[in-house]
Amino acid sequence: MVLSLEAALEQVSRARLAVLPTPLEPLSNWERELGHPGIYIKRDDMTGLGPGGNKLRSLEFLAGEALEQGADTLIAAGPLQSNLCTLAAAASAKLGLRCILVHNGEKPERLEGRVLPNRGLGAECRYRGPVDAGVREQVVAELCRELASSCHPYVIRNGATTGRGALGYVQAVPELERQFRERGIRQATLFAPGGNGGGATGLIYGNALLGFPFQVVIISVEDDRETLLAHIRQTLQEAEEILGLPFPGSLEEACVVDDTFRGEGWSVNTPASSRMVGAFARREGILVEHVYNSKVLVGMEAYIRDGRVPGAACYLHTGGFGSLFAQY
Amino acid sequence: MVLSLEAALEQVSRARLAVLPTPLEPLSNWERELGHPGIYIKRDDMTGLGPGGNKLRSLEFLAGEALEQGADTLIAAGPLQSNLCTLAAAASAKLGLRCILVHNGEKPERLEGRVLPNRGLGAECRYRGPVDAGVREQVVAELCRELASSCHPYVIRNGATTGRGALGYVQAVPELERQFRERGIRQATLFAPGGNGGGATGLIYGNALLGFPFQVVIISVEDDRETLLAHIRQTLQEAEEILGLPFPGSLEEACVVDDTFRGEGWSVNTPASSRMVGAFARREGILVEHVYNSKVLVGMEAYIRDGRVPGAACYLHTGGFGSLFAQY
Repeated sequence: MVLSLEAALEQVSRARLAVLPTPLEPLSNWERELGHPGIYIKRDDMTGLGPGGNKLRSLEFLAGEALEQGADTLIAAGPLQSNLCTLAAAASAKLGLRCILVHNGEKPERLEGRVLPNRGLGAECRYRGPVDAGVREQVVAELCRELASSCHPYVIRNGATTGRGALGYVQAVPELERQFRERGIRQATLFAPGGNGGGATGLIYGNALLGFPFQVVIISVEDDRETLLAHIRQTLQEAEEILGLPFPGSLEEACVVDDTFRGEGWSVNTPASSRMVGAFARREGILVEHVYNSKVLVGMEAYIRDGRVPGAACYLHTGGFGSLFAQY
Repeated sequence: MVLSLEAALEQVSRARLAVLPTPLEPLSNWERELGHPGIYIKRDDMTGLGPGGNKLRSLEFLAGEALEQGADTLIAAGPLQSNLCTLAAAASAKLGLRCILVHNGEKPERLEGRVLPNRGLGAECRYRGPVDAGVREQVVAELCRELASSCHPYVIRNGATTGRGALGYVQAVPELERQFRERGIRQATLFAPGGNGGGATGLIYGNALLGFPFQVVIISVEDDRETLLAHIRQTLQEAEEILGLPFPGSLEEACVVDDTFRGEGWSVNTPASSRMVGAFARREGILVEHVYNSKVLVGMEAYIRDGRVPGAACYLHTGGFGSLFAQY
């Protein structure tokens, strides 16, 4: 099964952008504190290009398609502090492509937070004021029409949450399986965030295709369980079409999707997630942010304390710490 | 010689803090641009704890001594944006030690830049206003006397530039030698910054003890050549005493120390170093800062263009990009 998954992935265009494998490291202080041997962190904050972070794995497959189509320009959209936008700028630089970022936000008076590296990486930034994501997508569509006569743009749709983007985390599963095997660990539960479900889809799909080496727990940081599962189901369908390997079994049985740690939803801290940012830094010396990272850590801790993690526990650090500079 | 160096290092107390080995990666766009096959980056910005960066290697040996002495508190001093201070906070967190940071600067009104992670990592920050480094050291000495009755402090002296701190880069040389060997590269020149010479000392000393696998070029970012060499000589003497292995040969013959790229000195950009921050980001998608990183890149480029690099060239990325958030 490993071979057929890896062989199927080899058929899909991919631009090498990330420093892989990312480290898998023990969190020894937390192990002692919780009395649970085997707590790990997968350092996908350390993917190496630009600010690092999980979405570089998705961008490898999206940029691969862009190059295959002969694109000369990447277009990404998001709020000013979007890690994806900064990664798109970095990927474009590395691949020699022009990059246009469309932000729903006002042009900042100071070059600060993410805007600083975006500009440094050579991206052209367009600020469309405080519009919602729907209007932002319309702006991108208009931009593509404008550009069509002068260049060949490729749009990173939906914050890289697409079937193709999800392949980044399909590909991460054999990487993780190898790392756990090398450490002699036979049973592990992966804890990852679920926002709009791109990375989650990849992990669940890759894990299923590899014969379920892991238990996968997705901690929703935004939507209720049914909504997140619907997002995952849609992205999964796109991914299946690209990879040509049907999902073996039922999505619901293949993972746990838990919405009990999201509080009031995306970017709204809970008391526990606020505390966790500092508690985790003071425990392990590793920096995490509020929106995606800390709610997953809160969830993982609850699962461990409740005795719901039979083997090792592994936290997927998806990165984005730089955004904390604008989160206070 | 490898064995005797590694055996000597094994005798010195060390706390494991960094994710090692750090990646060695090709800079393929720059290779093409300069027509020089074999340009590499050693990603010591990706040492993994706290903000990452080169001084974590030094802290492994300094914290090792602190633990050996039974210390319960690490004290570090520096300006508000000091990467070393943030790393000391992260190392203390990981090792379960109290951390006190003494800053020569005013308490900032907003939690921003480095101050944000320092506090998040649990460090106690003391702001002593705009005093010079000498006064700051007196403040640290007074603090130690105050604390002596209630705890056991260990002071990170001189920004970790000590003989013991330099062992971090002694230890990095066999790591690099192995990485180049695995890539089948027999000849390489390392380019690293020289500030007060701590890391430089380690590289030069480690390279000499290993039988000179590399040519080492230190680009001064602060002082003239003679001053920097004097710093290196002093730190080298301390390191020799700790390791018990005399430096084989003459320091001047063992390395190139070049002060022609420093401009007006520490933290003062030159036109070329200002341009390089953006040029490097747009070329490789990797973020660098002004004070230590960009002048070394300018120097390395000049050496390559002048035909002074016979084999591969390797840039040591010492990290510190986070400080850029306060450099504008």
